[in-house]
Amino acid sequence: MSAPAPFRASPRVLMGPGPSDVPPEVLRAQGAPTIGHLDPDFLRCMDEVRAMIRTVFGTDNRMTLPISGTGSAGMETLFANLLEPGDAALIATHGVFGGRMAEVARRQGAEVVELQTEWGQPIDPAALAEAGAGRPFRVLALVHAETSTGVLQDLAPFRAIADQHGALLVTDCVTSFAGVPIQLDRHGVDAAYSGTQKCLSCPPGLAPVSLSDRAMERVRSRESDVRSWYLDLRLLARYWGDERAYHHTAPVNAIFGLHEALRLVLDEGLEARFARHLRLSAALRAGLEAMGLSLPVPSDARLPPLTLVAIPDGVDDKAVRGKLLKRYGLEIGGGLGKFAGKAWRIGLMGASCTERHLALCLTGLGEALREEGFTPAADGLAAARAAL
Amino acid sequence: MSAPAPFRASPRVLMGPGPSDVPPEVLRAQGAPTIGHLDPDFLRCMDEVRAMIRTVFGTDNRMTLPISGTGSAGMETLFANLLEPGDAALIATHGVFGGRMAEVARRQGAEVVELQTEWGQPIDPAALAEAGAGRPFRVLALVHAETSTGVLQDLAPFRAIADQHGALLVTDCVTSFAGVPIQLDRHGVDAAYSGTQKCLSCPPGLAPVSLSDRAMERVRSRESDVRSWYLDLRLLARYWGDERAYHHTAPVNAIFGLHEALRLVLDEGLEARFARHLRLSAALRAGLEAMGLSLPVPSDARLPPLTLVAIPDGVDDKAVRGKLLKRYGLEIGGGLGKFAGKAWRIGLMGASCTERHLALCLTGLGEALREEGFTPAADGLAAARAAL
Repeated sequence: MSAPAPFRASPRVLMGPGPSDVPPEVLRAQGAPTIGHLDPDFLRCMDEVRAMIRTVFGTDNRMTLPISGTGSAGMETLFANLLEPGDAALIATHGVFGGRMAEVARRQGAEVVELQTEWGQPIDPAALAEAGAGRPFRVLALVHAETSTGVLQDLAPFRAIADQHGALLVTDCVTSFAGVPIQLDRHGVDAAYSGTQKCLSCPPGLAPVSLSDRAMERVRSRESDVRSWYLDLRLLARYWGDERAYHHTAPVNAIFGLHEALRLVLDEGLEARFARHLRLSAALRAGLEAMGLSLPVPSDARLPPLTLVAIPDGVDDKAVRGKLLKRYGLEIGGGLGKFAGKAWRIGLMGASCTERHLALCLTGLGEALREEGFTPAADGLAAARAAL
Repeated sequence: MSAPAPFRASPRVLMGPGPSDVPPEVLRAQGAPTIGHLDPDFLRCMDEVRAMIRTVFGTDNRMTLPISGTGSAGMETLFANLLEPGDAALIATHGVFGGRMAEVARRQGAEVVELQTEWGQPIDPAALAEAGAGRPFRVLALVHAETSTGVLQDLAPFRAIADQHGALLVTDCVTSFAGVPIQLDRHGVDAAYSGTQKCLSCPPGLAPVSLSDRAMERVRSRESDVRSWYLDLRLLARYWGDERAYHHTAPVNAIFGLHEALRLVLDEGLEARFARHLRLSAALRAGLEAMGLSLPVPSDARLPPLTLVAIPDGVDDKAVRGKLLKRYGLEIGGGLGKFAGKAWRIGLMGASCTERHLALCLTGLGEALREEGFTPAADGLAAARAAL
């Protein structure tokens, strides 16, 4: 074939469940000339990236690094390294990503006990304790920030439950990382993974992970090899640690971008960043509710960066999203799993969490809903403005 | 921690075994604003990328896509999908990457018969046929372009050998992709993988793979699930194919860069690109040999984009490489595996395959060798120039 024209995308405003808008500084940083994966300059970049990831995760874990794949590769890294065939895993599922954890764990040969609870509601710690009562587990896993439903889970009660089963505590922090507080060490989380394209506002492609010394002790004492060579943490530790032994060629430019995205987070300050997400998401929700839209997640369990909105009866999901995309280049997310066709997911994440995004979304959505036969009860933006 | 300074790397000229220098067009393309992984514009980009990868691989294979990880993730994708526990795999190893294939296949639970042959020499097809004589194999795998030694393997004889064993033929094309001709369909290769950071001159992070219908039939008729959820081709086919079902969030910006890198390859023309690699590598070799340096790989088995050079007795490997890096920002590769400390690997790949690179390398190397006590027999650049 002959060469096609250079690819040009339409301008977009990203307010789905990720990716979010990426700041120009990050795009520029990842566009710096490529250097070698063993270059002394790059080794310094790696060390700074690890230190910044630790800060955002709220941990001193030595074994903290970005996996060379997206958030799902981070998930797979933890289960592939922590579980051996025949190990038991207790996994709470209240959305797509809990279910994905269970599936990934099963493929590692683990016996999975899955507690399936209502989507859009937080997990009841007592129910999880009961589901696993009376037997040991290698791993207890749950989602901190369920990207499919917009539920934020309080992690505080789960260390004690994990201890009852002698289990390592594993959490999905994909949509909480750099958007809501994460305190891995304080909550006794042994292993966590995230992605870069949510509240960090970095392009997708890397998965920050962190493991406690206890979790790494488990990895080092495995009887069988990790089934994935690419994700084997014992091998990755030799490259990311002092030895600097070649494993695979690190995605150098993506890590340049990650460095800058993390730097911008620390420059803003974690507390200020969390407050921004809280403030604007509260305003968004006030606006949506004033319009007469319903938010399925109870108010005390809502994940600030991601809001689930029920699609009103008779309104065509795709027609509304299509109009927003065509008119304004505005992307909001469709529902996933049990919420497919029934809800939208509106993200206010990182660089996509501004008053400009809020205004465009509420205005555009109100307009499109009206055209689709649903008349908002009030002006969404005015209500949001009043709540700011 | 507080935010560190923005990361700035020293200027580099990349002439190791990859990554190679990345053209500014590719850096700019991957720095375009991020869009959604299900955006209609992005779906179009994906389709064009797949078509261009097919052209470079010399195949019409429907199942052709970039895996969201580096070349080693591409390798793991093929073995994880094609092999089930208990399957037999016949693998020829004549360098680090053949050995890595064997290791990855073993971790999938396969019984691996590994033919280990001399590093720096091509594989003898008769020896491989003999090693597997009298028994069936699910997969026969070998490396087309051994990045650890700079050996190019003629793939023509291996389809017949694979047929004798009822095996699928799998090849590593990491350092051949877009640098030397690959004809998957003509040679009856069932599955191949590559990386982006070699002759394609794209940042590392993606792994183009291609599988024949027969190979995908094997994947679809598996009795057990693929052990990796992230690399499961049945699931990936649903996203990259017509269904567009969400699997994981594609590394959107990396794929923008890949689109542009592939476009530049087709714009130059495959034949012209291969000729450029041949011409400049012949000149490099003439220059190195004129200096009195020895090239361990026999002349008819040399891989144009990557030249293995024996380090002369008494010369300090790291001192020479350190000088080149410090003075000129010039990176050449150290030896790997059996050649560690004994040889250098000099890459002339993609955008790093120019007369400018040739001249800097030969001049800088001659100078550093002299300072380290080895006096070149002749002027390397003059000899290279004469051979151009």
